[in-house]
Amino acid sequence: MIKINENYLKLQSSYLFIDIARRVQAFQTAHPDKDVIKMGIGDVTQPLPPACIQAFHEGVEEMANAETFRGYGPEQGYAFLREKIAQYDFKARGAEITADEIFVSDGAKCDNGNIQEIFAQDIRIAVPDPVYPVYVDTNVMAGRTGRAKDGRYEGLVYLESTRENRFIPELPSEPVDLIYLCYPNNPTGAVITREQLKVWVDYARENRALILYDAAYESFIRDPGLPRSIYEIEGAREVAVEFRSFSKTAGFTGTRCAYTVVPKICMAYDETGEPHAVHALWNRRHGTKFNGVSYPVQKAAAAVYSEAGRMQTRALIDGYMENATLIRREMEALGFSCAGGENSPYIWVDGRQDSWAFFDFLLNKAGVVCTPGAGFGRCGQGYIRLSAFNSRRNVEQAMTRIRTALAG
Amino acid sequence: MIKINENYLKLQSSYLFIDIARRVQAFQTAHPDKDVIKMGIGDVTQPLPPACIQAFHEGVEEMANAETFRGYGPEQGYAFLREKIAQYDFKARGAEITADEIFVSDGAKCDNGNIQEIFAQDIRIAVPDPVYPVYVDTNVMAGRTGRAKDGRYEGLVYLESTRENRFIPELPSEPVDLIYLCYPNNPTGAVITREQLKVWVDYARENRALILYDAAYESFIRDPGLPRSIYEIEGAREVAVEFRSFSKTAGFTGTRCAYTVVPKICMAYDETGEPHAVHALWNRRHGTKFNGVSYPVQKAAAAVYSEAGRMQTRALIDGYMENATLIRREMEALGFSCAGGENSPYIWVDGRQDSWAFFDFLLNKAGVVCTPGAGFGRCGQGYIRLSAFNSRRNVEQAMTRIRTALAG
Repeated sequence: MIKINENYLKLQSSYLFIDIARRVQAFQTAHPDKDVIKMGIGDVTQPLPPACIQAFHEGVEEMANAETFRGYGPEQGYAFLREKIAQYDFKARGAEITADEIFVSDGAKCDNGNIQEIFAQDIRIAVPDPVYPVYVDTNVMAGRTGRAKDGRYEGLVYLESTRENRFIPELPSEPVDLIYLCYPNNPTGAVITREQLKVWVDYARENRALILYDAAYESFIRDPGLPRSIYEIEGAREVAVEFRSFSKTAGFTGTRCAYTVVPKICMAYDETGEPHAVHALWNRRHGTKFNGVSYPVQKAAAAVYSEAGRMQTRALIDGYMENATLIRREMEALGFSCAGGENSPYIWVDGRQDSWAFFDFLLNKAGVVCTPGAGFGRCGQGYIRLSAFNSRRNVEQAMTRIRTALAG
Repeated sequence: MIKINENYLKLQSSYLFIDIARRVQAFQTAHPDKDVIKMGIGDVTQPLPPACIQAFHEGVEEMANAETFRGYGPEQGYAFLREKIAQYDFKARGAEITADEIFVSDGAKCDNGNIQEIFAQDIRIAVPDPVYPVYVDTNVMAGRTGRAKDGRYEGLVYLESTRENRFIPELPSEPVDLIYLCYPNNPTGAVITREQLKVWVDYARENRALILYDAAYESFIRDPGLPRSIYEIEGAREVAVEFRSFSKTAGFTGTRCAYTVVPKICMAYDETGEPHAVHALWNRRHGTKFNGVSYPVQKAAAAVYSEAGRMQTRALIDGYMENATLIRREMEALGFSCAGGENSPYIWVDGRQDSWAFFDFLLNKAGVVCTPGAGFGRCGQGYIRLSAFNSRRNVEQAMTRIRTALAG
């Protein structure tokens, strides 16, 4: 008899964004005349930079001729892309990362979700609260947790991000082996300083723990004092894997390209305490279960690093950051306490009520879709997440609608 | 202490094609003046069909304007593609598959590798021998096997494909829960008849087993009597998941698009024997760990089903099939007994010697790269796989070189 992985039965309801989509769908069916402004999911709205479009077309054209056609590429990505990433995203910032430490993939969500496979079943895992659900759900599926109880899974250590600690959690009070961190944070928009991040790197080195550092939003950091990569912190190469994406940097959410950095000196251990290179394990996983990213897509991603590409992506992000500033200012003017929106595309709004109630209010009274903070964990209760990934016009209209709804 | 998944330590050497690449690299370094003809890996060489190129460009162009830009798409794939697949690949052949039973992905290798996650740890698994290594390695990584011993993993049931059974294995003599089948077969090139396939479907229904049917090479089937989908067999919807790819159909190995079919009535069971829809489990996995295929790539894939696209892909495959016929005829003329090469792009050649020895002979004496059969399992020993995915000129030259090398 073919038996299921019963860990799937532990999963709480469906994936957050599927829940939201369902409520929006219900609203639109009931009010077909009303248009809805989506300020919820972190999806970009602006077109790909012209430099990427041009390279993308060129890549497609190469596929049209036998002389330039590309079949299977390296699973880890083409050297032309990996070398640019190493140079511009790391070496230029003083972080010593080489091209062969970079694994190009079709999405940070995939990498974030798949990385846990290479670790043991009985490791102790720390996740933020609020948290990007993928970190948690993929470990539930893999059987590393107990049942859910009051919105948390038994066996996980939750790192609480609250207004009291300004959304930077303290070190765990019990020992942990694998630590998920995300800065600029999804969903709170909080950023971490070098000093704060060093505390985590030092903890990992002292405890032979590993940090999974999700830096999908690093391109929104404009404060030169803030770290954009964990590898800017001394010793991080030994204890950290970093996830990056072109989704938010260059509008690739529908184009699909991301990468994961695994330094060669980063180690994990077998039962006897013998060290094994995480790089070799991930390379084996990547080579066995993945077949590389579409060649024209890699061409488009490489164009992000051209002179034109860098100017264009910076302008793209500038536009989103102006939205973020506007949203935070408006929500604060309406009396809401906010985090994020600076060096981050997310604004974390204390709604002073149940998250889903505020979600429903904004949807039904203002036609604005947000993301309820409670969907990200217990510490998200009472908050909503607003995203700056929209056109200026939509953001302005959404703010006007929210103001009117609250006044009414 | 962060501990590794020690199942990875059970994996035997590195992935077959990586081994081959290493030997070829060594040969090319030693003989920089000699060009090598690659008849090994199943990678296509001919450009994408013009209809796909045109749609691909159009998809890229849509990403250049805010009005037509696409961000995150449905994880399962766009309806425009899923509907075409359902119509042309299934309904047109009398197989009742609906669009929402199709999951578009970036590769059949990924889906083949990931599907095991949704099943229990202690299921009994049957794999072919010779076998596409991904079926085995992903279950080793997941801890469903014991150690390797004499080229086989403890705990797996091997379905032997030999010249005696004409490369169609008998039903297993011990009970199994999950069965990997692949037709047209990789690597033997063997095809399965309706009657033979019905034996497996009946077995699965009687034993509540599940068949993972890899039909990546179905477009090479030209004999109208042969099944192109397992769903052409009565009752298969209840007990089979099918994997398909655009890689070999339309030259998408470097473009990346595939799909997996999970009928809604296909069930797996929990410990109490309660049925659960495999569709719901796979949908949860897909939605949590995957973020959809690049939009322009899906546009290109949909063009395969246009009138021009269908003609062009047929012509593309006709070309490869002429190569296959040529290879088989030449190898037989040289005295080698062959399987495959009819309704299949692979020719399985009985080399009458150790597989790797014949591989090295062909590489060093003829400058031709094949795939050693032993790399696919114990029953592959003595065979090599030749692939028809090449230009006519290369195939002709490779055959001439092999003839000369054997004569010399």
